[in-house]
Amino acid sequence: MEKPWATLGVDLHLEPTGHGLRRGLTDALREAVRSGRLAPGTRLPSSRTLAADLGIARNTVADAYADLVAEGWLTARQGSGTRVAERAVVPPSGAPPQRRERHRPVYDLRPGSPDLASFPRTEWLKAARRAVTAAPNDALGYGDSRGRVELRTALAGYLARSRGVRTDPERILVVAGFAHGLQVLGTVLRARGARTVAVESYRLDVHEKRLTTAGLRTRPLPFDRLGTDPSPLTDEGAVLLTPAHQFPMGVPLHHDRRAAVVDWARHTGGLVLEDDYDGEFRYDRQPVGALQGLDPDHVVYLGTASKSLAPGLRLAWMVLPPGLAEEAAAAKGEIDTCGVLDQLTLAEFLTSGAYDRQVRSARLRYRRRRDALVEALADRAPDAHVTGIAAGLHAVVNLPPGTEQSVVRAAAWQGLAVHGLSFFRHQDAIADPQDALVVGYATPPDHAWTGALDALCRVLP
Amino acid sequence: MEKPWATLGVDLHLEPTGHGLRRGLTDALREAVRSGRLAPGTRLPSSRTLAADLGIARNTVADAYADLVAEGWLTARQGSGTRVAERAVVPPSGAPPQRRERHRPVYDLRPGSPDLASFPRTEWLKAARRAVTAAPNDALGYGDSRGRVELRTALAGYLARSRGVRTDPERILVVAGFAHGLQVLGTVLRARGARTVAVESYRLDVHEKRLTTAGLRTRPLPFDRLGTDPSPLTDEGAVLLTPAHQFPMGVPLHHDRRAAVVDWARHTGGLVLEDDYDGEFRYDRQPVGALQGLDPDHVVYLGTASKSLAPGLRLAWMVLPPGLAEEAAAAKGEIDTCGVLDQLTLAEFLTSGAYDRQVRSARLRYRRRRDALVEALADRAPDAHVTGIAAGLHAVVNLPPGTEQSVVRAAAWQGLAVHGLSFFRHQDAIADPQDALVVGYATPPDHAWTGALDALCRVLP
Repeated sequence: MEKPWATLGVDLHLEPTGHGLRRGLTDALREAVRSGRLAPGTRLPSSRTLAADLGIARNTVADAYADLVAEGWLTARQGSGTRVAERAVVPPSGAPPQRRERHRPVYDLRPGSPDLASFPRTEWLKAARRAVTAAPNDALGYGDSRGRVELRTALAGYLARSRGVRTDPERILVVAGFAHGLQVLGTVLRARGARTVAVESYRLDVHEKRLTTAGLRTRPLPFDRLGTDPSPLTDEGAVLLTPAHQFPMGVPLHHDRRAAVVDWARHTGGLVLEDDYDGEFRYDRQPVGALQGLDPDHVVYLGTASKSLAPGLRLAWMVLPPGLAEEAAAAKGEIDTCGVLDQLTLAEFLTSGAYDRQVRSARLRYRRRRDALVEALADRAPDAHVTGIAAGLHAVVNLPPGTEQSVVRAAAWQGLAVHGLSFFRHQDAIADPQDALVVGYATPPDHAWTGALDALCRVLP
Repeated sequence: MEKPWATLGVDLHLEPTGHGLRRGLTDALREAVRSGRLAPGTRLPSSRTLAADLGIARNTVADAYADLVAEGWLTARQGSGTRVAERAVVPPSGAPPQRRERHRPVYDLRPGSPDLASFPRTEWLKAARRAVTAAPNDALGYGDSRGRVELRTALAGYLARSRGVRTDPERILVVAGFAHGLQVLGTVLRARGARTVAVESYRLDVHEKRLTTAGLRTRPLPFDRLGTDPSPLTDEGAVLLTPAHQFPMGVPLHHDRRAAVVDWARHTGGLVLEDDYDGEFRYDRQPVGALQGLDPDHVVYLGTASKSLAPGLRLAWMVLPPGLAEEAAAAKGEIDTCGVLDQLTLAEFLTSGAYDRQVRSARLRYRRRRDALVEALADRAPDAHVTGIAAGLHAVVNLPPGTEQSVVRAAAWQGLAVHGLSFFRHQDAIADPQDALVVGYATPPDHAWTGALDALCRVLP
């Protein structure tokens, strides 16, 4: 007589594995059903028969059958024995969706990222060790939706010292990046009845998307040589600005306009959303203090670790006016969305002075790169010149009229990724059109910087 | 003649600090304006006069004035010198909002949290060191919105091995906790036109809120001694279930009902959302495999590190049917919301076997606690008894009819936080009312467990 198991046409190689015989049998049977080798309706040998066949204890087989009945792979009915469940088990349909591997440029001068190779891994791990070792057990639980108090306290001190921000830890909200913060603010503004947020004529479109997702329209303010002009502001619920260093144009907001924006907010009850993405990076002088310092009741300050450390940390912060802190925390959700271990590590990084050291060292690195860019262009591309203040992680390189698109295309041929200024222009921008590149000189690692600069010079007119 | 500075009534103690004289002067002046000691409109001494007065270089004063003009604290007009800006600078209104410190119970037996004291800090830090040291620079940048590929790959292997989940890394989405995942799914379902999600009669209300926030209604399914009954399912867009271990009732979904749910999904195109929050914790036998294994095209599997490691990590995962993976990744947003360092560390934790070791050790700890609970109740509270399977991090303790509220109140008097079953009951629940406690025996640290169990026994009838 043929072995009952073999009649099923299933190879059953049972080895006493780490999982045990029962587990091994269960897995093998499940796989046989799953793959269709055991067809729906197939009657299985009785546990006694199969046990004898396999030379194992009958209970082991009975247990494996019971497991698979509980999971729904098999059915057991009085009188009809154990069968493969009737529902056809289908494999996941089709091949897994293949994402096209993004074309990797040889050199990347798109703005938005710091030099990731200079992330202070060793210092960060040291801070992590101190922070995680010292953390109370409670810190590992479901947290305060505003973020860990250790981090909010460290930020309150740091922001007052470095950016002139006036706050206390109670009004700080830790978020998973600037865009997440903007999403929270969009929700709050929409809930308060706002319909429109004024934005700058040049800006990042992904930020705009966060506002439109929340149900808000955006209306651009004019941009001229003094920066963004707030005079058309009327009854918008809020205005989103980059006062210290306009992104991407690279100029600070003129002091009269700083004053005008705050006055507008005070008179209309509107909110100023201050995107201070690179406020720590000014090379020619002490950075202009945060606008928030002028009026903490009407300005929301937004800062981030994405430029000073790394975007991968997904850590940013908002400083909120008193009346708004609770609303924003509620909009963020009941549960903190940022991992506490990184929050505690960043708090330790700030209070130990490691953060300041990292910013100083990055400032020196990027300043040198900006100087090299200015020099190289003066030398090799006299028709292109760098505009804006000596600050930040990117510069605008003006081009002769009508050449932007061809330069960007030429760059692509050289394996150089770089954005033209038009990439950042609002569709309803109120600003004289201008041909330019936005060069993120912080993006490449040190070893690729010279090559990237060379490639850039080759494609400039 | 009086010193010009003194006429302003401002004490100016300038010390050559680490920030330099200019920075010190700027900070002191800003603070004087901010605090109101220098009133709006006040004319400042000329830079020449003040420099002589303070015994410092004139340029230093001129630079400090220029900084503060740029920031908006001072104004400089041809002919009228430098003045304090006219806009009154107001301090943030009122005192910071004080959150009431939540009353801290002496003992906490509310379910939902693992024993945080047993989080493997040392092992985690070791894994972090390996993972952060080995990570490519790119990992620190703006990430794939699905989460790091290292983690998705490690999860695909682990979930297949431990829970019978069928997937590949392409269809896994890393999220910041189960609730975040549910929010993403709610958005997707709403965008697909779903109006209603079927839920269980007993459930966590915070999960329901995530669905209602996305614009969905919830409709409870009946619950009886076989678990949740899916037979009333009709055209709901989805059903949210805890098949391996109903939360909080503690029973597995009967195998006929597992089959019926999958059949419903297949025939109607609905989705089954499988909340496998504690699937790794079964004490009497091998856990029932994931429902997802029966039909990866119609079941979304959701797992979390919140029970196996710690909620503070804010790491959970979804395994999505092929057609849904891209939609859900888009709904999650363009940018990953989970810190990459913790993602890489968890991947290392999984592949190195440290995760399995932690789960085994936790399983042993919680099993002992459950056994102690059953024994103590049999001994000291004969009218209360534990129901449900030997699994998970909590147990339902049945009480005599009409006693639940008084037991919960008595517990509060003893400093013992514990939820009655009614806390988890849907407002439209279809289930016989039942008096019971839901005891989260995993919540206390080891040293508090015996005390918590004693306190519980004291308040039971």
